[in-house]
Parts: sequence; C-alpha cells; structure tokens
Amino acid sequence: LNIPMFFHRYMRYYKHFRKELVDYITQYLLTTREKKVVLPDVKPGYMRGLLPDTAPTEPEDWDTVFKDFEKIVMPGTVHWQSPHMHGYFPVLNSWPSLLGAMLVDGINPVIFSGASGPAATELEMHVMDWLCKALGLPSFFLHHHPDSRGGGVLQTSVSESTLVALLAARKDKILQLQADLQEDVDDSVLNAKLVAYCSDQTHSSFEKAGLISLVKIRFLPSDEQFSLRGDALKQAIEEDKKKGLVPFLLCATLGTTGVCAFDNLAELGPVCEDEGLWLHVDAAYAGAAFLCPELRRELKGVEFSDSFVFNTSKWMTVQCDCAAFWVKDKNVLQQALAVNPAYLRHRNSKETTDFMHWQIPLSRRFRSLKLWFVMRCFGLKNLQGHIRHGIEMAKLFESQVKGNSNFEVPAERHLGLVVFCLKAGNALTKELLRRLTHSGKIYLIPVTIRNKYIIRFTVTSQFTTADDILRDWTIISETAAALLAE
Amino acid sequence: LNIPMFFHRYMRYYKHFRKELVDYITQYLLTTREKKVVLPDVKPGYMRGLLPDTAPTEPEDWDTVFKDFEKIVMPGTVHWQSPHMHGYFPVLNSWPSLLGAMLVDGINPVIFSGASGPAATELEMHVMDWLCKALGLPSFFLHHHPDSRGGGVLQTSVSESTLVALLAARKDKILQLQADLQEDVDDSVLNAKLVAYCSDQTHSSFEKAGLISLVKIRFLPSDEQFSLRGDALKQAIEEDKKKGLVPFLLCATLGTTGVCAFDNLAELGPVCEDEGLWLHVDAAYAGAAFLCPELRRELKGVEFSDSFVFNTSKWMTVQCDCAAFWVKDKNVLQQALAVNPAYLRHRNSKETTDFMHWQIPLSRRFRSLKLWFVMRCFGLKNLQGHIRHGIEMAKLFESQVKGNSNFEVPAERHLGLVVFCLKAGNALTKELLRRLTHSGKIYLIPVTIRNKYIIRFTVTSQFTTADDILRDWTIISETAAALLAE
Repeated sequence: LNIPMFFHRYMRYYKHFRKELVDYITQYLLTTREKKVVLPDVKPGYMRGLLPDTAPTEPEDWDTVFKDFEKIVMPGTVHWQSPHMHGYFPVLNSWPSLLGAMLVDGINPVIFSGASGPAATELEMHVMDWLCKALGLPSFFLHHHPDSRGGGVLQTSVSESTLVALLAARKDKILQLQADLQEDVDDSVLNAKLVAYCSDQTHSSFEKAGLISLVKIRFLPSDEQFSLRGDALKQAIEEDKKKGLVPFLLCATLGTTGVCAFDNLAELGPVCEDEGLWLHVDAAYAGAAFLCPELRRELKGVEFSDSFVFNTSKWMTVQCDCAAFWVKDKNVLQQALAVNPAYLRHRNSKETTDFMHWQIPLSRRFRSLKLWFVMRCFGLKNLQGHIRHGIEMAKLFESQVKGNSNFEVPAERHLGLVVFCLKAGNALTKELLRRLTHSGKIYLIPVTIRNKYIIRFTVTSQFTTADDILRDWTIISETAAALLAE
Repeated sequence: LNIPMFFHRYMRYYKHFRKELVDYITQYLLTTREKKVVLPDVKPGYMRGLLPDTAPTEPEDWDTVFKDFEKIVMPGTVHWQSPHMHGYFPVLNSWPSLLGAMLVDGINPVIFSGASGPAATELEMHVMDWLCKALGLPSFFLHHHPDSRGGGVLQTSVSESTLVALLAARKDKILQLQADLQEDVDDSVLNAKLVAYCSDQTHSSFEKAGLISLVKIRFLPSDEQFSLRGDALKQAIEEDKKKGLVPFLLCATLGTTGVCAFDNLAELGPVCEDEGLWLHVDAAYAGAAFLCPELRRELKGVEFSDSFVFNTSKWMTVQCDCAAFWVKDKNVLQQALAVNPAYLRHRNSKETTDFMHWQIPLSRRFRSLKLWFVMRCFGLKNLQGHIRHGIEMAKLFESQVKGNSNFEVPAERHLGLVVFCLKAGNALTKELLRRLTHSGKIYLIPVTIRNKYIIRFTVTSQFTTADDILRDWTIISETAAALLAE
C-alpha cells in the first residue's frame, strides 16, 4: 500500500462529495423551518444498538457513511438554526462564516504564536480592533492605539474568557499583596483570602471559574429588575474586608441568561475603581446588540471595565467557536498565563503578539477569518439590521402574550428575549412547557426566578419572519387554552 | 430592508462560492509541496497598512473579500499541511474530517447536555469507545462496559484535558483530606499543601495547569533516555511528605515534545497506586501510534492510569479541535466541575451524559462526527498504514543524518521524530537553523536539552514521500556543508 498515493487519490472524493454536501447544507438551512420537529424525540441510548461495537478495519464507502449520518445522527439532532428554536440564546451561522471555516479547516494552521501563524495573528488583532470600534467599546481595548496597553483575542468560549479574566485579576492582586507584605508568601496561601462577586443572576460559568480557581465567589442580590446595583456591591465589600478577606473582582453581566437583565455598570464601575476590584463584563448574548448605537444605554460605565467578553457565535452569525474577549492591560493578563519553553520561542518573540499567553490552551484555531468575512460580506449595516429585526420579532411576540389574559410577562423584555408564564401559577406553566416540549415543534427552556417558574422565548434565527412568530404563538396559546380548559 | 429575505437570498452565494472554494482547497492541499516556502517571510506588523482601520458599513462583494484573502492573508500563512513542514508535531486534516466539519458547521448544534444534542452526545460516547478499543487502552475507560465507571470525551485541546485531570485529582484528594481531618477546612487552604509531579521533559501545558490551579508542580529529573523512572518519583514523594506536603498527581508523558521520550509507566504506575496519586497520561502526539499493536510497548503500565489524553488532530488527520480524553471514574471528574443551574437541567438529566460537566467551557461543538467519518472512511487499516509510513519516512531521514559525518543524532529516534545537531556544537547548529528558517523552504524548530541545542525534524503530512524527505535532507546537508566551509 502506497500511503501518500492512497491519501492523494482520496482527495478526489473530497472534491466530489463536498460539492454534494454544499447542496445538502444549503437545502438544510433554507428548509429547517419546515421540519416537523425542532427538538427530536429520541430516548437516551437510542443510538447504541444502531452502530457496531468496534471501528471498521476496512474503509467504508462514503455513501454508506453518509446514509448512516442521515439515518442515525439527524433524527437525534436539535435544529438550532430553525426559526422555531427559542431555547437558550441564538447560536447562528451564516454563509461568509461557513466559507471562512471551510478555508480555515482546509489550510488548518495552528496559531499559538506570531511565528506559527503571522497572518492569522495579525488579522485577529485587526478584526478585534474593528469589532471594538463597531461596538463602541473604550479605546483602551484596542491593539492599535497610542494610549492603549490592551487588546482583543478570540477565545474558544465565554466561559473560558471569564476564567481567564479571573486568573489575571487574581495574579495581579496576589502580586500586590506580596509587595505589601514584603515577605515570601505562597500564591496558594494568599488565594485562600480572595473573594470575587457576581449577582444572583450571573451565568453558571462564573461559579465554575470559582471551582477551578478556588477563590470564594459571593452571589449578591439583584434588584427588582434583576440588576446588580452599586450599593449591594459596596455593602458586600465592607462585610468581607471586616472578615479579613480580600475582594478582587466583580463579574458584571449585560444580558443575563434568565431574563436578559443588565447589571448597573455606571454604579458598579466607580465602586470597583475605589476598592481596587477588577471589573469583568460578561455580555455573552447582549454584546452583539451594541453594534447598534441606539442600544448602548446599558454600556454606560464600561469605561471602568478591565475586561469585556461577548460571543460572536451567538447573535452575530459567526458559528462556534468565536468568543470576543478584550483586556485593558495585556501584560497583566500574560503575567498570569505565560509559560515559555524553548520550543515555543521564535525569532520575533519580542515583536509579535503570541496569543498562547492570552488563553488556557496552547493551540488555537484561525478564528478571525470567519469574523472578518462576516463583517465584510454583510457590512455593519446589515448586521445592525439583523439585530433590530430580532428585537422587532421579540416585540411582536411580547404583544401577543400581553394581549392574552391567560398569560403574564413577569419581567421586562430586553432585546430578543421575552419571558412569560401562566397567571394560573407554576404547576400549570410547567405542564404547559412539558406539552410544548413533547410536541417537538418549539424548543423552549424554563428558568426559575424568585420562586416563579418562567418560560424563556428567545428569537434566534436570522430567517425568522413575523409568520414564524405568530405560528409559534398560536401553538403556545392553543396548548395553554387546552390545558386550562381541562 | 427585509432581513429574513436578505439572509435567505444570500444563501445562494454560499452555494455558488462554496463550490469554488472546494476546488481551491483541493488544489491547495494537493500542491502545497510545490510552494516555494513553507514558512512565510513577513515582518511583524506587515498587515496593518493593508487593511482599513474600521469595518465597512456597506457589504462588500465576495470576490473583493476573497482576493484580499489571497493577497493579504495567504502570504503570511505557515503551510502546516506541507510535506516540508517539520516543526512541532503533525497537525493534519483529511477529506472525511473536512466533510465532517463542514456538516457540523452547517447544522451548528451546541451540545453541552444530552438534551441539547442527543445524537452528538451519543455518537461521541460511541466513537470514544471505538477509539479506546482501537488504541488498546484499558476497558475501564469505556462508556459501554459492565464494569466501567469511566468514559471518553472530546476536549478542545490536550492542555485543557490535562488541566481537567488535575482539577479532578485535586478535588478528590481534598475531599479525602477533609474526611480524614473531620473538620471544616476550606478547599483553598488544603490546596496550598498539594504537590503534583512531572518530568523535566513534560509539556509546558502542565506548568500552565499549575499556574491556574495554584498547586505546586515539581519537575523531576528524567534518565539518560529522557524518561521519568519510578525511583525518581518515589524519592520526591518521600521528600515532600516529610515537608508536610500532600502528593496527589503525576503527569506522565508518552512521547515528549523535545525528543519524543516515553516515561516509564510500568515503574511509575505502581508507585502512584501505592501512594494514592492520580496517574494522568499525556500521549498528545504518540497516542495515535497505539493504533498499531506493534507500537504499544510503552503502553505497559497504562492499566494504572486514571486519565489518558491524545490529540486526534495531530497525527490522526482529524483537524483541530479534537483531543481525545478518557477518565477512569467519571463521577470523580464531574464532582470537580459540575455546576447545574435550572436553565441547563432537562427532562432526561438523570439518564443522559451531560458532557458540560466533563470540561471547562459550557458550550461544545459536535466534534465526534469528523472522527467517526475518519475512522469509517479510512478504516483502521489505512490509519495504521499512515502511522507506519510516517515512521518509515523518519527512519529514512535518520539514516541520512547518521551517514553524514558533520551531524549527530543526540537522542534515539522515536516514531516520526528525529533530532539532530552539528558535531561542531551549539553555535553552528543554531546558525544552521537560522539559515534554514531564513530560506523558508523547511520549517524546523529547536529544543535545548541538557545544554545541547538540537533541531527537531518531525514527519508530518500523510502526503510525504521518500522524495520529499531526500529533498529536505539535501537542503539541510548542503546548507550545513556551506556553513562549515566558511
């Protein structure tokens, strides 16, 4: 067997089959809404009997493999790109992003350092500057700005970005404490004194960052609008300082997972500044909305932040993975994460940006290409149009809910997320969701806030029309009417 | 502007342009070897003047964007798929893997839980079992085995897998200590007592895991073959216990980055068992070789391991990201990483595997599809053939080096990695590498081991032929001859 020839010959298949797949995917994306179910009804373990117990020794032909994909995999797949997907937050793709990913997979570079991927590293810096400006974020987050010591980087996920922010803030505070103590105390000993804050609405990834770093996390009460306020933070800091703890970080959220609430940055920022806390802003979903100048009201106070993250792979149609993370001082970030063995040093080490020191893993994919393609092929104008359209669709849904006396909207709508429940109470709302989920026609998820069981409805797809929204509302309201009639 | 129509209309572009891209990528992969340089010669900052300072407001047409890709991005790209790429380790793709990635990007599901991606979750479990069996790993790593409490998961990177192993081992040891103490001592306080081990050849990602977790990391001396031995570990444990520290983990490497050395699992395993240490095995590169039964000698002792990781996106032609990680006891892993808010719970929570609790980020891509396609479309036979061919090519290179009196091979060749240097010493070897790098024709990286400056030559591409190897050797030997003649 001639191995190079074997692989060479097989590349023809790629060309042939890939063109077929292009048609398949185009068809899939344009007809997802017509699928009978968005949420499959397979039993856990359904796949096990459908596949052999061991990998084949001999190659199988593509047609057999692809038929198995259609027969075994697709029936167990949630259709995240469907206009009838309303769970979680949007997780979208788009044609420029798909083309970018295809190119990147084809070329397949690994870009841990400026030497291993000069173009990829520089494009990432450039596009992160574009995005920073397009969102109206502070200029201290720019790579290319005379007064800036900061910059942006594309991380795998928002979870990791938040962990990275925490690690940077922690190392910075530990170094300050060690300087103040003027004696040699181990990082791990000082770590036991540190405390970080977030609201009771903060995403679970911050709690996970606490498990990993072993710093104490304190969940502070949000106000009646589910927003964390300055006074709550101030009070917690005072209490903890009295206990001998060292407050070092606040994770503030713009657009919480529960009801898309916004923490009050304008109040929290000055408290963080006075008390020497790192202010990390998690805008995972809502960040994309800041592309529209009229939606930046809640950004007030962002000038106090030390780091900021949002996920372009949510609303901004750049498919996973592509989390945009900015830091105000890249040296503080790198001092927390840099290890630098000989095999990773290179001739331009001092002149280039080596993103491996900005993140947890060493290897990284060339993620900026798809983001660059999306920004150029759509233009900011159409990305803004997409955000505004999503909000209009949410308003349409909200007006339907409010016009039906069986329902209430228990928290203000923000952006593309409407929450609702039955006035008849938690048990019936829960049963309503069970029936909707069982139908498979709509994907919705619940959230329990202050003992109230609530259903979340997020507008996701860029293909969503008013008809889609009204169809889904009809299913929800009729299912509710039937339930209440029983 | 009708947004759904805008996006809908544009999907036609995807279909059209994507077919063009298929041709482009096929052409790229089949002609990479003919490129004049594998390593671009661009100056840091070259891109900045070539792009506007802000993102465009209006959409640009695809031809303009793609021309910029060719004009601006490609000249600054390292050709990792080239047969003349010998830096680091292989980072390969293949047509079934490219097709898998394309499908996944098109469908774009996010599979943190069994509910958010039933098929993706089950396929991952199934394929990880296939891979476990194909590598000859212990059956306690299987999802589907009556006596197993373990399972495999596809992580983003080996770095993260190693961190995850460390976090699982740490939590387990802290819980043991808390049970022994019978009083309420904070995790972070006990963390300050923990110490983990690795050899002086271990990858930098383990040191980074130490920075993140704040456990002490001790680098133990390897033997003259760069292998960590049982006695070195035993001695370190005894010393540290006398100091009041608590040893809890060993990170053993099969195939180190420097010279592809193998730690002695058969000696280390029993020490770990006796002393209650978690044994984590990092086989990032060498793991793929275990597909061949005749290459499993160094696997002896793997039956003592608690976790094992290798990267399918290296030698196994499944492009980034796709790191295969197995754990012996999934409950121990999950107790270190599980946070479980209401919006992530689902009706089958108790019956399904929710991989979000096996990793650091919440979100995860559907990675198993490309691995499944690769295993089926190539069959184990051809994957084995590919590994064996790579080793043959390395042997060919080694024989050339050994036949030239200017050179020496300072450490034994293992698998596809040959290290060499000039007998004339470090300064000239360094100058040789500088000239080779400057030519751009070959990508090689150095490593310094025991004060010796060494050049690494890894066989990477599945398209590499004996002619490619001989061409590269000619460049190296002629450059050396010219240098030595000066």
